[in-house]
Amino acid sequence: MHAQTALKYSQAHRRRFVEELKQFVRFPSISSQPAHANDVRKCGEWLAAHMKQIGLQRVAAISTRRYPLVYGEWQQAAGRPTVLIYGHFDVQPADPLDKWRSPPFTPEVRGQNLFGRGACDDKGQLFIHLKAIESFLRTSGRLPVNVRCLFEGEEEIGSPNLPSFLERNAKMLASDVAIVSDTRMLGPLRPAINYAERGALSAEIAVIGPRQDLHSGNFGGAVHNPLQVLSEILAQLHDSAGHIAIPGFYDRVLPVTPRERRYMARTGPSDAEILKDAQLQEAWGEAEYTLYERITLRPALAITGITGGYQGPGAKSVIPSHATAKLNFRLVPTQDPAEIDRLLRAYIARLAPPTAQVTVRSEPGAKPALINPGHPAIRTASEAYRKAFGVAPVFLRSGGTIPIVDSFQKILKLPTVLMGFALPDDNMHAPNEKFHLPNFYRGIATSIWFLKGIAFGRNGNRRRAEALSNEFAAAD
Amino acid sequence: MHAQTALKYSQAHRRRFVEELKQFVRFPSISSQPAHANDVRKCGEWLAAHMKQIGLQRVAAISTRRYPLVYGEWQQAAGRPTVLIYGHFDVQPADPLDKWRSPPFTPEVRGQNLFGRGACDDKGQLFIHLKAIESFLRTSGRLPVNVRCLFEGEEEIGSPNLPSFLERNAKMLASDVAIVSDTRMLGPLRPAINYAERGALSAEIAVIGPRQDLHSGNFGGAVHNPLQVLSEILAQLHDSAGHIAIPGFYDRVLPVTPRERRYMARTGPSDAEILKDAQLQEAWGEAEYTLYERITLRPALAITGITGGYQGPGAKSVIPSHATAKLNFRLVPTQDPAEIDRLLRAYIARLAPPTAQVTVRSEPGAKPALINPGHPAIRTASEAYRKAFGVAPVFLRSGGTIPIVDSFQKILKLPTVLMGFALPDDNMHAPNEKFHLPNFYRGIATSIWFLKGIAFGRNGNRRRAEALSNEFAAAD
Repeated sequence: MHAQTALKYSQAHRRRFVEELKQFVRFPSISSQPAHANDVRKCGEWLAAHMKQIGLQRVAAISTRRYPLVYGEWQQAAGRPTVLIYGHFDVQPADPLDKWRSPPFTPEVRGQNLFGRGACDDKGQLFIHLKAIESFLRTSGRLPVNVRCLFEGEEEIGSPNLPSFLERNAKMLASDVAIVSDTRMLGPLRPAINYAERGALSAEIAVIGPRQDLHSGNFGGAVHNPLQVLSEILAQLHDSAGHIAIPGFYDRVLPVTPRERRYMARTGPSDAEILKDAQLQEAWGEAEYTLYERITLRPALAITGITGGYQGPGAKSVIPSHATAKLNFRLVPTQDPAEIDRLLRAYIARLAPPTAQVTVRSEPGAKPALINPGHPAIRTASEAYRKAFGVAPVFLRSGGTIPIVDSFQKILKLPTVLMGFALPDDNMHAPNEKFHLPNFYRGIATSIWFLKGIAFGRNGNRRRAEALSNEFAAAD
Repeated sequence: MHAQTALKYSQAHRRRFVEELKQFVRFPSISSQPAHANDVRKCGEWLAAHMKQIGLQRVAAISTRRYPLVYGEWQQAAGRPTVLIYGHFDVQPADPLDKWRSPPFTPEVRGQNLFGRGACDDKGQLFIHLKAIESFLRTSGRLPVNVRCLFEGEEEIGSPNLPSFLERNAKMLASDVAIVSDTRMLGPLRPAINYAERGALSAEIAVIGPRQDLHSGNFGGAVHNPLQVLSEILAQLHDSAGHIAIPGFYDRVLPVTPRERRYMARTGPSDAEILKDAQLQEAWGEAEYTLYERITLRPALAITGITGGYQGPGAKSVIPSHATAKLNFRLVPTQDPAEIDRLLRAYIARLAPPTAQVTVRSEPGAKPALINPGHPAIRTASEAYRKAFGVAPVFLRSGGTIPIVDSFQKILKLPTVLMGFALPDDNMHAPNEKFHLPNFYRGIATSIWFLKGIAFGRNGNRRRAEALSNEFAAAD
């Protein structure tokens, strides 16, 4: 069972791998839109069939209250550790559709990139591990470790049913380490391992005013317009220095050590790089932090959508009866989404005028996660990256959220290795999402080296974590 | 040529009149939406054909740069005055469609009301005068006065081509008085003649941020979100006392006389009535004015729509690349829409942060209008209402805008009689717009009495206007 043989197989079958990934991307598996419920399910069925085909065992689509989980395993490496590979096959909505150069669910290779919604987040990255597994099984008939693959269809809606599934099946899922590929590198040859993820909380503020739309000529001046009420509330969510103005919001934000800030300054993206990634002229936010710090170790609040009144071309003389705004928080240790939800509701209640009804709805949030970069599995991953990319990865904080990391830690007592292969310009969650195919190929190699190299025993995950700050010194 | 004979004819043919009005309402003649361009044109053609059919002469659809004007006349009452009857056959957009009990362009009679977009504003009210004309022509073969009918298809987009048409054709259109039925009564048996209309200005504020949508996890905290920028700007358009905060905005607002305020308090709708009309629990606005004053003699600014970010169900983790808001101003004498536009642009430029690009687009506005209630034509209208409704009308200020009133005054030197037949609950510009059919029938009677009664000579319109405040004393 040689990694080199598996590597050669993976190189020889690249073209087919890309064609299979295109089939996978073709499903509009948008979990947040009920109209696509069937597409999410069909995508899961396709994935399960594919897992069977490459030789995984006990493959099953496991029903939840909404979308099934797809599970498969290979458990014949007696005495070797078990790796839990997590990924998700649901995707973000594709709109605004008019910004796509090719249709989001008609995957298309242009240059070195495969374009399509989900090509990178997370179908392409999930597929990396399946292709690594296939490369071992087709060449050696076996894997160097035990694996459990657990792929969900609800990540983009906050994994509402995964924690309870993990709780009910903790014994069955017993493993030594989890790996998740749903994070970013710094550049095509600048691999990175994420050691921190922000938590998340989504909420919606609705302002209800008159019982129906009113003529702005007939009633303008006597009605508190819901769009005005909403704007007045939203404008008070931040202060003029870019801080979030919700009382108590920062109470549980951990201070960051000077050592970590120095490590981040040395290894992380510069302000200029982040501006370039975002294609932005001017940064904004808390001036006392670098951009990398603002988007990773500081919490954030984005208004992700406002709807209200007339949205067509031209003008309409209307005072709308209601208006809504969607909010998305990103949280950092040790903020708790349930507590932030309470603080938000209390603040909105205080801001709401007597002239309109203001309500807040929220979805269950995800806690922020911190992973000890000194764990042996992280070191194995680091070595695998070095072999596949020719350069060792840096340790990065991510601004994104992978709710499952918190659940793996809390429920399965597993450390998670965040081996990401997305590029900053891969347009995740935006039009023209793409996956850089050289990263797809190098990702498969990284996964092959990781599965081959992971050798620590069943107790590896119980190794006492040293203080994070020591690891930053060691990683230097 | 007896008014009574015409009245009897109009009563005998009510059922057919309603059926014809339904045909008229069936056209989705939404002038603000380019997709309905053809519907506006077809509606004008139907109207022209109908005018020919009832006996009007020189009927023609006259091209403008966008939608044709429909003209027809009857000029055989030698030595008698000429009445210019104005109306519009374009309508407001019908959305939100899900709020309509019956489809907006499938007119339906329920109880005493005809439901449909435009049933009241302004197809039904325009039709009143055509049916009065028909009633005279079919019974006496002639009219008691000369008439010119001028119906446009661009009122709901601010009549962009009408003023230049009037200028080019001022001689051909020479008349003694204009009548416009596009305003409201106080209740089914409480007729009203409007003597003041607010002006209007529509504008759109666009905030352009990142070149494309960004992931709120990856970039949240470092980007000035266009929806946040927009909210912060919109929240500064009013102060906490309900005044518009644009510097200089009130500089040209005329102080109102105590006599007019007393007249308004006596004759106009009470706060409670206005709240009931609006189906509103709580009023808002300038506390130093009654609601009737706030919606008529005070200017107003409504945010009529906001669009930006994700608008679908559920959540999407996105920082949108841009956001827009539509604004609608209502102006009072002697505010000038062009000057308000300049003040708005200057203020927005001052509020715009360096972290986003903020632009303002505006459409040509309409000036506010004041009409002398002492004009003999107004007195004739008053008497016509008294005969048709059994009660004399009160003189009302309107909060709405009929741009044409200003143009008739300025270009054709014509006074305008605003004979409205809309009820407060007719849902103009809102879902479930309707026309109260008893008002349709009494409106036809009012028009018959008006055409019969109007007898002043060609110089009537040159009669020197007394001060408005004297008229309020006289009307008492």
